[in-house]
Amino acid sequence: MTKKNKDSALKVNQGIEQPPSVDNNAAQRFINIKRKKLSVDEYVKGILNGNRTILSKAITLTESSLPEHADLSRQIIEKCLPYSGKSIRVGISGVPGAGKSTFIEALGKYLTEDNHKLAVLAIDPSSERSKGSILGDKTRMEDLSNDKNAFIRPSPSAGSLGGVARKTRETVVLCEAAGFDTIFIETVGVGQSETAVHSMVDFFLLIQIAGAGDELQGIKRGIMEMSDGIVINKADGTNVRKAELAAAEFRNALHLFPLTESKWSPKVLTCSSLYKQGIDNVWDMIVEYTKFTKQNGYFEFRRTNQAKYWMYETINNALKDNFYNNKIIKSILKSVENDVLNKKESSFTAAQKLLDIYFKNT
Amino acid sequence: MTKKNKDSALKVNQGIEQPPSVDNNAAQRFINIKRKKLSVDEYVKGILNGNRTILSKAITLTESSLPEHADLSRQIIEKCLPYSGKSIRVGISGVPGAGKSTFIEALGKYLTEDNHKLAVLAIDPSSERSKGSILGDKTRMEDLSNDKNAFIRPSPSAGSLGGVARKTRETVVLCEAAGFDTIFIETVGVGQSETAVHSMVDFFLLIQIAGAGDELQGIKRGIMEMSDGIVINKADGTNVRKAELAAAEFRNALHLFPLTESKWSPKVLTCSSLYKQGIDNVWDMIVEYTKFTKQNGYFEFRRTNQAKYWMYETINNALKDNFYNNKIIKSILKSVENDVLNKKESSFTAAQKLLDIYFKNT
Repeated sequence: MTKKNKDSALKVNQGIEQPPSVDNNAAQRFINIKRKKLSVDEYVKGILNGNRTILSKAITLTESSLPEHADLSRQIIEKCLPYSGKSIRVGISGVPGAGKSTFIEALGKYLTEDNHKLAVLAIDPSSERSKGSILGDKTRMEDLSNDKNAFIRPSPSAGSLGGVARKTRETVVLCEAAGFDTIFIETVGVGQSETAVHSMVDFFLLIQIAGAGDELQGIKRGIMEMSDGIVINKADGTNVRKAELAAAEFRNALHLFPLTESKWSPKVLTCSSLYKQGIDNVWDMIVEYTKFTKQNGYFEFRRTNQAKYWMYETINNALKDNFYNNKIIKSILKSVENDVLNKKESSFTAAQKLLDIYFKNT
Repeated sequence: MTKKNKDSALKVNQGIEQPPSVDNNAAQRFINIKRKKLSVDEYVKGILNGNRTILSKAITLTESSLPEHADLSRQIIEKCLPYSGKSIRVGISGVPGAGKSTFIEALGKYLTEDNHKLAVLAIDPSSERSKGSILGDKTRMEDLSNDKNAFIRPSPSAGSLGGVARKTRETVVLCEAAGFDTIFIETVGVGQSETAVHSMVDFFLLIQIAGAGDELQGIKRGIMEMSDGIVINKADGTNVRKAELAAAEFRNALHLFPLTESKWSPKVLTCSSLYKQGIDNVWDMIVEYTKFTKQNGYFEFRRTNQAKYWMYETINNALKDNFYNNKIIKSILKSVENDVLNKKESSFTAAQKLLDIYFKNT
């Protein structure tokens, strides 16, 4: 910690050295917490007590781009770390229209009614954080957002996937420390966000629907291979047979892939989120997977690898950020790139030229 | 170019300012070229004249880790660049045992007999450059290595995939400038080397053999999706029917994938490299693909994107190299990583700590 940061952390600390004047009005206390600058220890204590207002504030710090917030956030996360790691982390993906929200509500309610504590997070690098989208997330999961056992947090605002993913991974630590035993991380079925989610969950679930017989056409490279389970949603009414056929097709396709590293054979199930049918089977599958991989050691292996992965990923992204945000590099990058595109310079000479300039000016 | 490099380039230049004393003995001239330090212009002239000894020496410079060689090599490549780009670049992949060498010999001879000039390169980051493996490459392609229209160059020696790939891509430029109109880049069917080869060729060919009915089991993620064509080799004798069945299975599997960016529908063919049957069809497919993608603009689009890709790839790799080879980072990296693995520190704090140290010491 630099001196400046130390000072500002200290200042925050001093601000709360004296407990606030006695006030038994809960609403007033709530407002105080909302407005107040808390110390690291107050944050940590609040989170460990399951205080959602403080949890939300801590997540907001994580998402902030202000250096003093980043520093405060790092300290909170470090102190929460020993209390984290005890949940089951489930990644949920699927193209728009597959009924992800309804599915998450159905599976979520199934869990909270069984007294599970569920946090629903999201990674969507294209999302613009605005009042609209927060409302959006809460509206589309109305039941869960009014559920005392559930906590819904929309995707961090638009930015690089690396940044969005980092923030979400830190939020997982905070939610676990706050006592949530199940974490859903939702992602839209586009871009590289699935890979990011896959690298921070224990179980990756792909939501699909039965289409016109060409179910597999729309699946992006790699998504199916990284799935530990596939659910054909909307298996209700006249759609049941179609869903079963789609499931069979997916099972066949899965056979084409080599055995997974976990030795787990991915399952394909059908369900109706709307009528809450087959939801229990989905959860049973996740529990079975967890038992299976805890027994053969893969569960811990995957988590350890993920922690390592994120350390290196963070370093590598920061190195790139530093380079591409360098003022001189920024001012000449496009013209050098054009020289490469017009074959005036080879890719390698161009790269070398930029690197020489960068290292001379760092 | 730094002053020091300029000086050393100058020195090399001066060394040959006077032409060597007249010597009409060709063998002696050959030995002279072998031993001599050539100037940039001598290298370039030799390459453009199709002089293989000079071409080989230039490739060796490219592969060298000495800074003065790197500088000389960069100048040669820059000057060769305007003469490059006119070949068809074909990537050839397949697991050991698929008969890649025999296939390359068969297709290679088919081309050289038709007066094509063929260079066969390889990317194998696991290869140890030793006399053994060079001999190995030449022995396993005996016909081609004695063919005046063919030039075989084994994989650059073991190293990071990025390094090996860069060297091979530079070698492509040199070979094209030397008049080779067809470039094969072979890769073993393991690791990430396929992706590297894919990012430097126009057509990616996957060699397979018919197995016990489970043809698709052994195929790694993504390899099939990146293939522009698949050839079932060893379709001879009692194996013909099996090969046809395997081809049908591959065709079905390919239908599961979305349309390629090139709009080309990947083809599946069978051939016997041993009996040289069906080899012409493979070449016809490649020619057809080239025509098709030149017409719809994808050919040029792919190449331009590749040049850009390699510029950024080179930069990003160099940034990482510089970080991970930093003395202080090297000395503490493992212990910081262990703190992450033992949950003493979060991935992100650990990364931040290392980055702070690095940027203070750059």
